[in-house]
Formats: sequence, C-alpha cells, structure tokens
Amino acid sequence: DGHLKVFTLNSNPELAHEITEAMGAEMGKSSVQRFSDGEVQINIEESIRGCDIFVIQSTSSPANEHLMELLIMIDALKRASARTINVVMPYYGYARQDRKARSREPITAKLVANLLETAGADRVITLDLHASQIQGFFDIPVDQLIGVPILANYFEEKQLEDIVIVSPDHGGVVRARKMADRLKAPIAIIDKRRPKPNMSEVMNIVGKIEGKTAIIIDDIIDTAGTMTLAANAMIESGAKEVYACSTHPVLSGPAIERIENSALKELVVTNTIPLPPEKKIEKVKQLSVGNLLAKAIVNVYEDRSVSTLFD
Amino acid sequence: DGHLKVFTLNSNPELAHEITEAMGAEMGKSSVQRFSDGEVQINIEESIRGCDIFVIQSTSSPANEHLMELLIMIDALKRASARTINVVMPYYGYARQDRKARSREPITAKLVANLLETAGADRVITLDLHASQIQGFFDIPVDQLIGVPILANYFEEKQLEDIVIVSPDHGGVVRARKMADRLKAPIAIIDKRRPKPNMSEVMNIVGKIEGKTAIIIDDIIDTAGTMTLAANAMIESGAKEVYACSTHPVLSGPAIERIENSALKELVVTNTIPLPPEKKIEKVKQLSVGNLLAKAIVNVYEDRSVSTLFD
Ligand SMILES: Nc1ncnc2c1ncn2[C@@H]1O[C@H](COP(=O)(O)O)[C@@H](O)[C@H]1O
Ligand SMILES: Nc1ncnc2c1ncn2[C@@H]1O[C@H](COP(=O)(O)O)[C@@H](O)[C@H]1O
Repeated sequence: DGHLKVFTLNSNPELAHEITEAMGAEMGKSSVQRFSDGEVQINIEESIRGCDIFVIQSTSSPANEHLMELLIMIDALKRASARTINVVMPYYGYARQDRKARSREPITAKLVANLLETAGADRVITLDLHASQIQGFFDIPVDQLIGVPILANYFEEKQLEDIVIVSPDHGGVVRARKMADRLKAPIAIIDKRRPKPNMSEVMNIVGKIEGKTAIIIDDIIDTAGTMTLAANAMIESGAKEVYACSTHPVLSGPAIERIENSALKELVVTNTIPLPPEKKIEKVKQLSVGNLLAKAIVNVYEDRSVSTLFD
Repeated sequence: DGHLKVFTLNSNPELAHEITEAMGAEMGKSSVQRFSDGEVQINIEESIRGCDIFVIQSTSSPANEHLMELLIMIDALKRASARTINVVMPYYGYARQDRKARSREPITAKLVANLLETAGADRVITLDLHASQIQGFFDIPVDQLIGVPILANYFEEKQLEDIVIVSPDHGGVVRARKMADRLKAPIAIIDKRRPKPNMSEVMNIVGKIEGKTAIIIDDIIDTAGTMTLAANAMIESGAKEVYACSTHPVLSGPAIERIENSALKELVVTNTIPLPPEKKIEKVKQLSVGNLLAKAIVNVYEDRSVSTLFD
C-alpha cells in the first residue's frame, strides 16, 4: 500500500526508462498494444492496488493516439484501484489551442484538461506549458517544471562570450529573462507578426545584436519557421553567431530542412519528445530531462514541493 | 433560433451527405483539418448560436483520430453557443471493450461515453451497439437504431427459399431472432469459443442447417474469422448456400482475403463505416443507412420517438 510505481506508454519509452533508472526503480509491467482494427488494447500486468502511480506519456505527434492511450491507461489504473494517478506529460500536446484566436474555434488545451480529469487523473506533472494559464484549466494540482536550467547549463559550459538572449515573440520574454539571468546576459526581443498558423514572419529586432552571439529561446520548435527566419535576420543585423534552444522539439513538416539551410549554428532541445533517426542531425543537440523528472516524481511522492528543482 | 443544422467530420462524409440529401438540408460549413504537427484544427464557418446541431461521425478506424475530431468539434460547438449538440455515431468504436474481460483492463466503451459527455454532448444517436448496456454508460439520452430491417429487406427481395438465420454466438441470438421473425425463418446458433482477441474458432452448430440457405448475422464483422469459419462449417454440415450480414463492416487485417477464400456466397453490410476501394469486392454488398439516420434526426429534432423507425 502506498507504493510508488512508474508506468510508461508508447510516446517516449526511452525517456521513461531514463527516469526509472535515475530513480533506481523498476518499470511497471503493462502491455499497451493495438487490436487488429487499431483500437488501443491495454492490460496492466501487475497488481497496483493502493499504489501511487506515475504514468509517463508525452502527447506529442501523433497527439490523438498518444492522448487516447493515456486516457485509456488512466481508466485501467483507476479500475485496478490505484491510490493516486499522477500523469507525467513531459510535452503537453494541443497547448497552442489555449484560447479562441478566432470565432467558433475550440479550446482544445482546456478540453484535454477536462478529459484527463474525467478519465481519473489526480495530478499532472509537465514541463514548459505553452501558456502557464493552462494550469488553471485543471481543478487538480499541476506541477510545471521548466527547461531553462538544463538549457542554460549547456550554454554555460560552452563558455560563449558576449551573448544576448533573444525571445522570438513578446509571449516568450519571461522565459528569455530567466535564461538571461542565469547566463548574466542582456535580452533582445523579436517583434513579429504571424500571417497564418505554421507560417512566420520576422519583423524587427528590439535590442542590441551587432557583434554578439545570439541565443534564441522558445518553448516549442515546430516547423522552425520563426526560429530560422529569426536566425537569418540576426545574422543580417550583424550578429556573430546564432544558437537556438527550445524545450520541446516538435520539428514537423519542413523543420529539419529549414534548420539545415539556416544560419543557425546549433539548435539545443530536450527529450520531452523523442527524435526519430531522420531528425537526429548534427546541428540538433538533445539534452535529457530524465533526472529532472525523476526528482519531480520523488518529490511529489514524498509530498515535497517541486519548486526546489528550479535552482 | 432552434434551427436544425447538420455537420460532418472526416470519418464518413459520403454517408453524411446522403443524410442531408435525404433531409433536403444543407451541410453545415466547417473546416476540419490538421496543423503541420498532426493536431486537429477545427473552425466552424457559420453562426450556430441557439441552433440544434447534429454532428455525424463514426468512430471507426482510425478510432482515436475520429474520436478526438468529434470531441474537439463538440467543444467548438459548445463554445459557439449551440442550443443542443446531438452526436450521430453510426458506428460506436471501442464498443467491444465494454467490460473487464480480464483483471486490470480498461472499460473503454464507458470512458468514451464519459468523454463525450464531458466535451458537451447532449444526446447520442447510434446504430446496433455491440452491447445494448452501453446505453447505460451515458447519463444523456441514447437512441439506438437497428440495422436488421435494412438487412432483412435486402434478403426478402432476393426471395431465397428454405432459409435459416444463424447467430454466430450466444450474445447475438436476440438480433438473429429479430431477423428470423422478419423473414419467417427458424434460427440456429453457433456454439463457439474464442481463444484470443481477433481469433475465432467454430465449435458446434445448434439447429438444423442441412439442405438450407443459411444467413449468418452479426453486429460487427472485423477480421471475419468467425464469419468465414462459420460459413465453411455450415457448408460442411450440409447447408446449400451461406450468406452473411452485419451492420458494421470493420473488415480489418485479413478480413477481405478470408471472405474471398471462404464458402460465403455474399456478405451484406451497411455504410456506417465507409469501404475504401480495396474492400469493395464483388462478394461484399453495401446498403445505405442514410435514410434511416435522416429520419432519426428529424424525429429527434421534432421531439418524436425514433422507435417507429423499426417497423
Ligand atoms: N498544433 C498547432 N500547430 C500550429 N499552430 C497551432 C497549433 N495549435 C494551435 N495553433 C495556433 O497557434 C496560435 C497560437 O499560438 P501562439 O500565438 O504562439 O500562442 C493560434 O492561432 C492557434 O490556432
Ligand atoms: N477492437 C477490438 N478488436 C478485437 N477484440 C476486441 C476489441 N476491443 C475489445 N476486444 C475484445 O473483445 C472481447 C469482447 O468481445 P465480445 O466477446 O464479442 O463481446 C473482449 O475480450 C475484448 O478485450
């Protein structure tokens, strides 16, 4: 009773195994497969009665498949008498649909929150939500970890000189500020307009770039339109070198090609979303959030705050 | 205010258009697409404020994709101030996961019911649920239509002689009885054991088959293992000819090959699930439920029972 057990689903088993390894724990036994018609077939293969369960699943692409796996797993855990069901979502899919940008649109990030609670989740642990407001979409506790310390550490070790941290939009300034504080650097902001979803346009750089090493930071890098246009614009504005970093490497559509062909020297991401072989190019460096999540799980299980993990 | 509007999603647009045509109605304008990363992007392109909405979507394969489209559409409709949201699910996916067959399994059919209600559905109209108990999984009204009259009509017009209606298992006897009453025929029952999901084994035929034209009836035909083994067993037991019919043509995996190579003369199904070109073989005859669903929608909208549609 009250034992901690960790289960993984199919979105990110490598990260899940890094987490259990860092915890010195065994992975919970379950079978998560498909019936012949593609419906999810789940069976939990050990008793979990009275246990505190942590299920690891990013709702990365294919988001609907991964979300349904998660919801069905939660249902199975609940019916198998888990004491608590803690959902560890390193990447929270649908986070960008967090408001009605136009009339008669859904707010899918809120729907997802409702679905998780309906299925039976008791708590959510996640990393760098696209908007912190998504925490308020839930009526259960949400622990939001941040990727900044891991990304900042990497650049610190590189001992780059005369750097400037660049936010690709006004929404990302808080994140850029955190990074800048860690690296004791100034910030710059890109004043951009996005004409359509998955299209980006770089406008105007607010802040001094010339002669500096720029590090652009964003939460999600998806089609890489913003990032690569920004990188090119910064080189044109006289930046010496341009790095980019981002917690969540969605990298859909033309992303890899754009990165290859851009002025970006390196893109640093984490493994909240796994990279398939064709996305593991030299310019992309992937850092692990395994230790961070392992510590967060242990803290939550032992009823301690996760905020100490930000130092 | 109080206008009826019909919307379709992507699982079965052909059937949806048959329905609006039968109703003499226009299809509601909406865009249901994907973002670059595969997340569902929905926009309702006309005002629906105060309207009674009917959304048509089978949660057929890929079930998770189609279910998420539906849930997100319901969310968008709710936020756009629909008066009522009526979900028309010709095929209810995950219906076979309607109980814990083993320990620590989910009950996904119940989860799906909860998800639909959480998203904001006010009513469900469906056809031949795998188990009628699924109606009780909902706290909102569920209208269950039946395919038997449409299937029975087809065989009536064929004027087959000396027929026997065969239920492929004990769970299907009520359905076979309904069919037999319409065709004024006796019934037989196959006493089978299924060793594993998506595998079937025919055991023993209870009832007289010899010299007769057998018509096997089931709700779902998935891998066609049961149906084709049953057909072959019946020919071996002296049946003259064997037909099969089923409301929902899932037809996954080896289904088409098995049907081609079996003793089945013809398989009659409906269009609750569309057939892609490679499944449109000569032996498979598809009948439309468009008129039936159109009538059901009008009855529900005009606050009349749908039970008259069974006569
Ligand atoms: N998966 C997605 N891919 C691209 N754009 C999205 C996605 N989900 C939502 N959006 C759009 O992204 C915009 C919000 O992004 P942002 O302005 O960065 O917060 C809205 O217009 C959304 O409709
Ligand atoms: N999509 C599916 N394909 C094949 N079998 C399934 C599916 N969903 C559930 N089942 C299994 O089918 C059995 C129930 O089918 P039945 O006995 O015909 O009601 C249970 O053992 C389920 O685990």
